[in-house]
Amino acid sequence: MQATPYPTPEAVEAAFYAAFEARSLDDMMAVWANDDHVACIHPLAAPLNGRAAVAAGWRSMFGAAGRFRLQVKPVHEMRAADHVIRIVDEYLTIGEETEPRPPILATNVYRKDADGWSMVLHHASPLQVGATPAGNTPPGVLH
Amino acid sequence: MQATPYPTPEAVEAAFYAAFEARSLDDMMAVWANDDHVACIHPLAAPLNGRAAVAAGWRSMFGAAGRFRLQVKPVHEMRAADHVIRIVDEYLTIGEETEPRPPILATNVYRKDADGWSMVLHHASPLQVGATPAGNTPPGVLH
Repeated sequence: MQATPYPTPEAVEAAFYAAFEARSLDDMMAVWANDDHVACIHPLAAPLNGRAAVAAGWRSMFGAAGRFRLQVKPVHEMRAADHVIRIVDEYLTIGEETEPRPPILATNVYRKDADGWSMVLHHASPLQVGATPAGNTPPGVLH
Repeated sequence: MQATPYPTPEAVEAAFYAAFEARSLDDMMAVWANDDHVACIHPLAAPLNGRAAVAAGWRSMFGAAGRFRLQVKPVHEMRAADHVIRIVDEYLTIGEETEPRPPILATNVYRKDADGWSMVLHHASPLQVGATPAGNTPPGVLH
């Protein structure tokens, strides 16, 4: 489960979501940098820091999840020479459901090292909770 | 409302949270890079992309908010030569309340340009919703 750096940030992102949808832990951990400071934040959960914790989080999620389909819509991008930040909407369709769930918003950070690009951060969070429309902040969540 | 780059990422972060607590739009926009690709995600809301949208978001928030106090606890850090990613817990105490609200989790990305460091991304999201303990994902939020 070592990183397999990719030629572009877009290739890392495609591999990340392919591994996610396929629920393949080996493929998933190939996209993360060989760096004990990588960090993964699943929706509403505390950060998982370092490759071991990140792997444990995905193992747990893949074990709990049934089949699902995943659609990803790019929302925003910021490029520098060796860091690219991409913000995407993730649409999950679970099991036999015919419509995607409300989107999850994710910030993905990719870093270029000597061997190529890999993922160093994934921060996913709900865009809305329950019946609250996106963009409206429910009472009690000031920031 | 131009950026005022800082000598370190830590100085940017201190200025960011000082501006946030002081509800000062000028001070807030001084910490953001002069870059139309900066992005700010408030909890449960869609991304605000570019300085103008980021400023509009803070203006709206500062206009709506009463007095509050803000405590910030660093959780994780990843450093590269010209990018630093810091993950923090934000604790807001609002008005006359005596206890902080449940924490907000934020990923902050700082970038070094020719003049120094500034903020390029802030992604804030709830760590828990309602009575759900942190780290437990409520039903319906698979990822």
